[in-house]
Amino acid sequence: MSGLFLPATMRLRNSPLTRAARRPPEDAPFMFRKVLVANRGEIALRVIRACRDLGVEVAVVYSEADKDAPYLKLADQAVCIGPAVATESYLKMPRIIAAAEGVDADAIHPGFGFLSENSRFAQMCRENGFEFIGPSAEAMNKLGDKARSKEVAKAANVPTVPGSDGLVESEKEALDFARKVGYPVLIKASAGGGGKGMRQAWDDDGLVKGLSAARTEAEAAFKDGSVFLEKYLDRPRHVEVQLLGDKHGNVVHLFERDCTLQRRHQKLVEESPAPNLPDKVRIAMCESAVRLAKAAGYYSAGTCEFLVDRDHKFYFIEVNARIQVEHPVTELVTGVDLIREQIRVAAGEKLPFEQKDIVHRGAAIEVRVNAENVDKDFQPSPGVVTTWRPPGGPGVRLDTHVVTGYRVPPNYDSMVAKLLVYQPTRAEAFAVMRRALREFVVEGIHTTLPIHRRIFECPEFIAGEVDTTFIEREFLKRGK
Amino acid sequence: MSGLFLPATMRLRNSPLTRAARRPPEDAPFMFRKVLVANRGEIALRVIRACRDLGVEVAVVYSEADKDAPYLKLADQAVCIGPAVATESYLKMPRIIAAAEGVDADAIHPGFGFLSENSRFAQMCRENGFEFIGPSAEAMNKLGDKARSKEVAKAANVPTVPGSDGLVESEKEALDFARKVGYPVLIKASAGGGGKGMRQAWDDDGLVKGLSAARTEAEAAFKDGSVFLEKYLDRPRHVEVQLLGDKHGNVVHLFERDCTLQRRHQKLVEESPAPNLPDKVRIAMCESAVRLAKAAGYYSAGTCEFLVDRDHKFYFIEVNARIQVEHPVTELVTGVDLIREQIRVAAGEKLPFEQKDIVHRGAAIEVRVNAENVDKDFQPSPGVVTTWRPPGGPGVRLDTHVVTGYRVPPNYDSMVAKLLVYQPTRAEAFAVMRRALREFVVEGIHTTLPIHRRIFECPEFIAGEVDTTFIEREFLKRGK
Repeated sequence: MSGLFLPATMRLRNSPLTRAARRPPEDAPFMFRKVLVANRGEIALRVIRACRDLGVEVAVVYSEADKDAPYLKLADQAVCIGPAVATESYLKMPRIIAAAEGVDADAIHPGFGFLSENSRFAQMCRENGFEFIGPSAEAMNKLGDKARSKEVAKAANVPTVPGSDGLVESEKEALDFARKVGYPVLIKASAGGGGKGMRQAWDDDGLVKGLSAARTEAEAAFKDGSVFLEKYLDRPRHVEVQLLGDKHGNVVHLFERDCTLQRRHQKLVEESPAPNLPDKVRIAMCESAVRLAKAAGYYSAGTCEFLVDRDHKFYFIEVNARIQVEHPVTELVTGVDLIREQIRVAAGEKLPFEQKDIVHRGAAIEVRVNAENVDKDFQPSPGVVTTWRPPGGPGVRLDTHVVTGYRVPPNYDSMVAKLLVYQPTRAEAFAVMRRALREFVVEGIHTTLPIHRRIFECPEFIAGEVDTTFIEREFLKRGK
Repeated sequence: MSGLFLPATMRLRNSPLTRAARRPPEDAPFMFRKVLVANRGEIALRVIRACRDLGVEVAVVYSEADKDAPYLKLADQAVCIGPAVATESYLKMPRIIAAAEGVDADAIHPGFGFLSENSRFAQMCRENGFEFIGPSAEAMNKLGDKARSKEVAKAANVPTVPGSDGLVESEKEALDFARKVGYPVLIKASAGGGGKGMRQAWDDDGLVKGLSAARTEAEAAFKDGSVFLEKYLDRPRHVEVQLLGDKHGNVVHLFERDCTLQRRHQKLVEESPAPNLPDKVRIAMCESAVRLAKAAGYYSAGTCEFLVDRDHKFYFIEVNARIQVEHPVTELVTGVDLIREQIRVAAGEKLPFEQKDIVHRGAAIEVRVNAENVDKDFQPSPGVVTTWRPPGGPGVRLDTHVVTGYRVPPNYDSMVAKLLVYQPTRAEAFAVMRRALREFVVEGIHTTLPIHRRIFECPEFIAGEVDTTFIEREFLKRGK
């Protein structure tokens, strides 16, 4: 491992042309010689592992806060790109490009978070002759913006949350909309944010009163009283579809993940298959996601997120144009290594399978273990991990960059591990998860393990009868 | 966890009748309430995990040498059964029975090694009202003895290594035998042992001379010059078949494992499927194993071991009437949890599948990580593990009782971990194993990790062209 600090002003050493010229001709199989991982922590290690498994050299960037992280030694090279503060390191595009130049990589994997969904960065990578391991900048732009992606979805005949399609000027207009989509509806301030000027209405009377109240509140807050309406999904589930596409127009889905268990829009637990979801709905949702991806010319890994209401109707909400934290859930139930496939399709390979070849087997669950103090409103708990004793044995997969003695820096996301189990059935997966959570010993920092141990005893979750607000609405208020 | 020391003289507290009376009637489903694990280390933890996954209470015995082992805390109870020396603890049958009485278990899992293949112990467990989680004492007796099991195999039409079936009195008899089975043949002293009076013969001339020499040597060593002959398998492979049977007469195989890579008859690496073995041979071997098990009235998990010669002819050598170290290889390629199934069939359940339901998918490999100093002729390397940094991520399973700070006692088997990988293909499994071996950091003791790193770069092994003597004959003599 060579650790070299590249100042932001460093000049490019290899021209894009040089690298491009090194590639084999169009018809020969091409694989990257070296990948640069432009991320940190668990996902950096995950990509390092995928490169090793593919036999591709791998370099990784790091900030000064991560300089002693043991996972750096598992790469062939590690490059310091700046101080702890992310805007000066992991978010600093020119430094990452310079690092790629410095190690002479041919491709950059952005992981998740940081620059992973930044189409300007994707563009910059490619303009400098590095393949960006992710979708095209065009597809990112189309799908990265919520309003634009909703248009793409509508055009591809993918159900979206019904809205008034513009401002609501009169009570009559509002009542007509509510009659069309059914109650409850949500009144939203056009200039809104942070819940200001937002009202639920459950009947005509509530709608009329709410409309007036929302206008007044929005006028006061934003000096703009205009509002629009959306169907309000009461206690929905969050179900998402994993997509994978190549640069030759092939797109497949790898079935769904249920990520309903959330706290403040942060996923806590993810599983596949989604419990209590009729096969017809799962398939329709998966096919919708493929239509959307094809309409956007999407390649690489991506996720199409849906809300599912109590009648099992599903509504597109957004696309995550990157690999997601919870991707290993899908790897376990399909046997497909998503990071390796991302790298392969970025190198121009065709998908090695068709939709019919992808079979969903068994049940997988992931819990996110965060360095947080559950008793102090989940506040981050950085520091030195004095004991790290992970679970193991049959059915257990652990993705983590943490080892005994590791210092969790205070600067970044608090996730320290993803604990996954895979079993023939959901009931067995729950049993193995309970066992694995019991085995897992962490000392020196607080983690979310205690709340996960409670979650896997929770009757509503066991029954698959939770919604996205369940944890905050009910679970966290219960005695321990 | 309660630690209580049970002296060998302790009286039985619960009569077998009491426990038997607690069982539900014949037609109701029965599962043990509590299992006692009569073993230590990795396999003890493996059984503890299986019990947890089944929702069965679990107690574990331990000797004074293991009193601080962290895995004891993962059981509901732990019972000290004596001092470090195994004959006074793990091999001391009355103490284990007393421990089962003390914790009020209904069944005893013997693991592997120690008392696992002792039919008297199986008998004693059952006579005292504890189900022995393993085959019947009768089946153990039939198959535990090499000579008897060979008779059973012959009767079940399972190929065995051809022998002269008795003493060879004359040169003519010897030459007739050699003509029948083909060269090479092995001349063995009837009273022999330790290689004394043993000779290989590769042609008629060698046979005649060898016969005379072997007689002389045997006469000198044992005062008995009588010899017999066996076909000599030159550079064979070791391939074994995993069996599983219930108490209702059902027996299935779970395909084969190739355990050819051995040093001094100790397996180093195991994998499934066996490379370069025609499907026809694999299936014939698996079906032979099932015939043998049925002929012996075998239930529980067991393994039928074969040698395979260079023409892919296979010969039964012995049955291991217990769970084996390498059982997780089969768990990965079939999705069947063998320890859970052992417990279920011991409780009287029928196998939940038929032969046709068992599908072999992908490729799995296990390496045994031993606390041994490879540079000092593999001598045991007990002591405190100061750093234990296991590999993880996709495709990796680790079965181990070791954690940072664990003290490997000098008293027992030196195995500290079983590292397994599972991938769609053998080539991918090799790549992931290389990566996992690279990630694995152990300090404070010597381990066999360095030799495994070399083994997975060995061209003959990668090509699947090794035999049981390859490691000693060639590999260990090569420079590092």
